Amino acid sequence: MKIRVHVRIIPRTGLLDPEGQAIAHALSALGFAGVGDVRVGKAIEMTVEATSPDAAEASVRTMCERLLANPVTEDFSIKVERA
Amino acid sequence: MKIRVHVRIIPRTGLLDPEGQAIAHALSALGFAGVGDVRVGKAIEMTVEATSPDAAEASVRTMCERLLANPVTEDFSIKVERA
Repeated sequence: MKIRVHVRIIPRTGLLDPEGQAIAHALSALGFAGVGDVRVGKAIEMTVEATSPDAAEASVRTMCERLLANPVTEDFSIKVERA
Repeated sequence: MKIRVHVRIIPRTGLLDPEGQAIAHALSALGFAGVGDVRVGKAIEMTVEATSPDAAEASVRTMCERLLANPVTEDFSIKVERA
């Protein structure tokens, strides 16, 4: 079955995130008050051919560990669309 | 109250996504078969000061429309952490 999987890769807490800081400043300049701790990472969506949603999640977890995320600087989370 | 909000910004379906294609090729080269339609966008997390989760979501929606997303080329979705 074809399964749509969503991955979110975000810089680890405590690491500098200049892009997040730039967005926080830009939002403040546009008049949005009370915005803080902005972190910017990658959102990846893909369709995976797998026997079950759990198998798809396990496969995408391996992809994150081997290619998509940097385990030293980034955290990732995976969400599987269950039809 | 301080509310954590997650935003996902993804290139619209039908638009060319070279970064997604590059990831699809790299995954294939690493031996992951059956991966298709990879799309890469931005994941943004922020803490918003708002009176309610719904108010936080409305505020972040305006931020997406005015700054964070390009409405011509990108779709966005917003998820509010409800404590």
